[in-house]
Amino acid sequence: MESGRPAAKGAAAKRPAVKTIVIDCDPGIDDALALALAHGSPGLEIAGVTTVSGNVSLARTTANALALREYLGFPEVPVVPGSARPLLRPPINAAGVHGDHGLGGVRLPEPALPPAPGHAVDFLIDTLASRPGEVTLVAIGPLTNVALAVRKEPRITEWARELVILGGSYTRGNVTPAAEFNMAADPEAAAVVFGAGWTVTMIGLDVSRSALATGPVLDRMRALGRLGTELLAPCAEFYGMVTATEGPAIHDTCAVAYLVDPSLIEVQPAVVEVETAGRLTSGMTVVDFELAGRAPNALVGTSLDVARFWDLTLSAYARVRPTARSLSG
Amino acid sequence: MESGRPAAKGAAAKRPAVKTIVIDCDPGIDDALALALAHGSPGLEIAGVTTVSGNVSLARTTANALALREYLGFPEVPVVPGSARPLLRPPINAAGVHGDHGLGGVRLPEPALPPAPGHAVDFLIDTLASRPGEVTLVAIGPLTNVALAVRKEPRITEWARELVILGGSYTRGNVTPAAEFNMAADPEAAAVVFGAGWTVTMIGLDVSRSALATGPVLDRMRALGRLGTELLAPCAEFYGMVTATEGPAIHDTCAVAYLVDPSLIEVQPAVVEVETAGRLTSGMTVVDFELAGRAPNALVGTSLDVARFWDLTLSAYARVRPTARSLSG
Amino acid sequence: MESGRPAAKGAAAKRPAVKTIVIDCDPGIDDALALALAHGSPGLEIAGVTTVSGNVSLARTTANALALREYLGFPEVPVVPGSARPLLRPPINAAGVHGDHGLGGVRLPEPALPPAPGHAVDFLIDTLASRPGEVTLVAIGPLTNVALAVRKEPRITEWARELVILGGSYTRGNVTPAAEFNMAADPEAAAVVFGAGWTVTMIGLDVSRSALATGPVLDRMRALGRLGTELLAPCAEFYGMVTATEGPAIHDTCAVAYLVDPSLIEVQPAVVEVETAGRLTSGMTVVDFELAGRAPNALVGTSLDVARFWDLTLSAYARVRPTARSLSG
Amino acid sequence: MESGRPAAKGAAAKRPAVKTIVIDCDPGIDDALALALAHGSPGLEIAGVTTVSGNVSLARTTANALALREYLGFPEVPVVPGSARPLLRPPINAAGVHGDHGLGGVRLPEPALPPAPGHAVDFLIDTLASRPGEVTLVAIGPLTNVALAVRKEPRITEWARELVILGGSYTRGNVTPAAEFNMAADPEAAAVVFGAGWTVTMIGLDVSRSALATGPVLDRMRALGRLGTELLAPCAEFYGMVTATEGPAIHDTCAVAYLVDPSLIEVQPAVVEVETAGRLTSGMTVVDFELAGRAPNALVGTSLDVARFWDLTLSAYARVRPTARSLSG
Repeated sequence: MESGRPAAKGAAAKRPAVKTIVIDCDPGIDDALALALAHGSPGLEIAGVTTVSGNVSLARTTANALALREYLGFPEVPVVPGSARPLLRPPINAAGVHGDHGLGGVRLPEPALPPAPGHAVDFLIDTLASRPGEVTLVAIGPLTNVALAVRKEPRITEWARELVILGGSYTRGNVTPAAEFNMAADPEAAAVVFGAGWTVTMIGLDVSRSALATGPVLDRMRALGRLGTELLAPCAEFYGMVTATEGPAIHDTCAVAYLVDPSLIEVQPAVVEVETAGRLTSGMTVVDFELAGRAPNALVGTSLDVARFWDLTLSAYARVRPTARSLSG
Repeated sequence: MESGRPAAKGAAAKRPAVKTIVIDCDPGIDDALALALAHGSPGLEIAGVTTVSGNVSLARTTANALALREYLGFPEVPVVPGSARPLLRPPINAAGVHGDHGLGGVRLPEPALPPAPGHAVDFLIDTLASRPGEVTLVAIGPLTNVALAVRKEPRITEWARELVILGGSYTRGNVTPAAEFNMAADPEAAAVVFGAGWTVTMIGLDVSRSALATGPVLDRMRALGRLGTELLAPCAEFYGMVTATEGPAIHDTCAVAYLVDPSLIEVQPAVVEVETAGRLTSGMTVVDFELAGRAPNALVGTSLDVARFWDLTLSAYARVRPTARSLSG
Repeated sequence: MESGRPAAKGAAAKRPAVKTIVIDCDPGIDDALALALAHGSPGLEIAGVTTVSGNVSLARTTANALALREYLGFPEVPVVPGSARPLLRPPINAAGVHGDHGLGGVRLPEPALPPAPGHAVDFLIDTLASRPGEVTLVAIGPLTNVALAVRKEPRITEWARELVILGGSYTRGNVTPAAEFNMAADPEAAAVVFGAGWTVTMIGLDVSRSALATGPVLDRMRALGRLGTELLAPCAEFYGMVTATEGPAIHDTCAVAYLVDPSLIEVQPAVVEVETAGRLTSGMTVVDFELAGRAPNALVGTSLDVARFWDLTLSAYARVRPTARSLSG
Repeated sequence: MESGRPAAKGAAAKRPAVKTIVIDCDPGIDDALALALAHGSPGLEIAGVTTVSGNVSLARTTANALALREYLGFPEVPVVPGSARPLLRPPINAAGVHGDHGLGGVRLPEPALPPAPGHAVDFLIDTLASRPGEVTLVAIGPLTNVALAVRKEPRITEWARELVILGGSYTRGNVTPAAEFNMAADPEAAAVVFGAGWTVTMIGLDVSRSALATGPVLDRMRALGRLGTELLAPCAEFYGMVTATEGPAIHDTCAVAYLVDPSLIEVQPAVVEVETAGRLTSGMTVVDFELAGRAPNALVGTSLDVARFWDLTLSAYARVRPTARSLSG
């Protein structure tokens, strides 16, 4: 067994309560911290990681996913590259936020293992098809891969145990006053996903804006040892200014934390539609909590138990043992 | 002098600090309460009232403005009817909220005096032209009249001392999750007004949602006598459910209160644009506080000093003496 | 009587068949040629000329209308300036086609008379109101003035004897593949006008593209004397390349010619709507001839009797005697 | 070898000039006639048929493609089902035009052979990848499959020898005044395809409206024997009213005929973009022939040599021998 794999994981995998998840992501700083959280959570079994163009290019998000897989210690999990650009629009990115490499100033060792053959869309379809009702899909980047999978195989909406996304907002956006990055990056894909007939659990900015990596949180990260000092804290510091009470919001971790313990985040049923026609509002998730007789298509996160969130997240990080040689070595 | 005119007003009118205002409105319950507030405020001189299609039809908003003028006691102020429908779109209305007559269940006496001749658009232009830099325009309905005036005489943007509107939101709307009623009723007019080159003071839902006519507020209204028991309290009760801590938001009064005492409402500079192309978001005021080098075109209200707001408003109401015979008589 | 006024006009004015028209225009080369046609047509009585921003700025279209009025010889007709910009969008212009002054290289004498006081919108409303059912409105520029008039006084749609516009297309545009200039310059105004409840006679590119000022046509213009050599031919030559069989389309004249003799242009009933939301198609007149039970809102020109058109137009030009001193003098 | 395969085909297949094609289609009456044309053309080798939702549902277009394959006699060619609905929008269909079964009143025998496993998107990618530069893709239905293939494997734009589509228009549409059916059915897919970086040969209504199955054409069809009397003529007659000089336009055949003999259709370079945001114009192909320095992304058909088109098409039909028992038997 791989040395870096948390010991607790093996035991946890035998418990029936373990959730099998596929993570569709675009690492990305907060994706990296979300992958670490997932790997360190005994209640989650990562069946695969798929990548998508988003925070940085597909080439970079894939390279980062591969490097993180080995550094965090789950080399047996397939990493499958997906879409290099949005459904309809030219790509936007967030390299200004995540750095040109996508992980701030952190440089992980070059990965030794290649990505899995095939395309993320087929991996998503095949994985969900192979275990209907059992696999949870958590999408923390633009929804291009998920939308293409839905269109290629509409039955995945029945096969998925659950779909949890990190993205959207029912108040204000971040890339524009109206839209959050993952939704703005591919509004048409988001519209496909919300309209596909399943119930989407949407953990948006309304929740994730509370997941601040403050000074005290960073202190706890650093106290964890190499993972904290090599990856977590440097990433967080690159991601935003840190003070005693403020810090960057580690968005993507919220979606994974929700899978570990849904009680961390209050959710409410809503009808969510995505604006694709607006001149100023494309990518906005228009969230209607007053259902007025309409069936909800989403559960929308409305608040986060911040203290318990960080306790859970830091506990998971404590279970991860980096496998690579020390980055500073 | 007209009997119903507050005695304090005569004195106030001599003070240089009196603001001359034209009120463009669509009464409407909260418009009625805003007109009462304006009339009862020694610091404001109402130079005219113009009407617009909005909460109810132009015929009703005009009839209500005429009836309110006499009931509240400013019959010398011209009431000038304006636009019967939005610039581009079919009218929507809010009769479900304001009642078919527009004032809930309140039936004021038929007005004795007719509207002034001419059109609101020309009245606005002529009034602003006649005293450049002196007249404040406060618009508490859809912005159709103001937009038409801007297009017919672009110099009004220089002549107006100030433009304060009640409408919009930088978080969530009320007629849709994205849009507030006044903006949604005529998005193109709103886009014209925000794009006209002046600084628009936007008092939106973010502020007015706090102006709740709670049970204690209604008690204070009723304690005022006829105005409270005949008009204010019945209107408010029709407008929404009242409890000890909750009640309907009396939106339009906020814009007038701001004119009386700007310190009641905190405002911040922003670039405000109005979505006119969205499928789900038309009429949304997209508010960008991060100017990023752009010059602001608006001051956007962000918070209300609720206690002082009600003190000021109820003090003004106390100065108004209804002129008509008792409605219950 | 003014020397330049065609002698035939006096007689014609007594005939009941004379149509009283108001011309809303943006001169502009083809506007100039249309004004000359109108003035030289005994069957038309020009009650007024209103100007709008379009081919060039409002200042230039007004200056040109004033200069043309005196040069062509109808100084008693009021010229009233209107809108300086479109309803919603920033202005576009066609100075590249019409020259910076708007009349190609032609420089008319400075006008001696000023524009009439007031605004085009009010002139249109008042003129139509004063003689309900008698006045035809012919609009050969962007429809901003007409739209504002419709919104300010909706009854003009009942008062107008007829509305004929030059603009639109049911096949292809000219400023874009989808949109014709007058409609593209103010799509929202066009949408208002087509949706106002009257029947719009739309003479579009489908017709006007046939009104070519070919070499032989220019020869006939020049043979008319000063008008031809000073104004008509130089304007046409500036407007486009001329060969024996090709030449620039003198669009605006078609709308006026239709008023003189409707049999020149075949028209068909249709539902016309104007695209205001398209990314590539804004200002397109979407023309549906298959009514499918819908009531038509337009009569759309489909073909032009080119030979008779030029005969009629040149006959009218022959009746016009320029009043100014020779331009070359 | 299957009896129904045209004898000439075997010989033709040895000639280097044979074009290998994959046909993406939604049979559909004109699709059926286009498949017959392709199969009867010695210059074309059908490498596969993929199906898409369009004229009728995917289930029906696939069933029809399977039935046609056996009836027309190319059972060795794989038929691969694709997308059951458009990228973003709800499906529209043309069952009113093609009949509920999609082939008018014609009922072909139930197919004996099943569709190939897998998805059209992968078949397209794999086929183009297996022979880069050799395979022509001809798409005569909505472009959903092609768009998904482009997004899943962008390199197909380099691998395809040529892409020819039947759809669009640079003048007027058919399902709306602005849009042709295939483009209107999936505007976003069309936008993806035209924006993918290859040169799209667009054979649109401007061309296909000339491909009329007139009375004389139908006589020639019937003279061919079973194919004409069982399939071609009944389909055409269902498709539209036939007179001596008029008849339904057999659109899809034009795209296939172009592959057999490009000289039948004149094409011109253009920039083609697809409107996806319009309220009245969605799915319109906005065709700009005046490149103004922009590189063309399309060759757009502008005229059809009708006489030679029918000679070629009927010659091809004459080579097809239906394999099923007589439908009337």
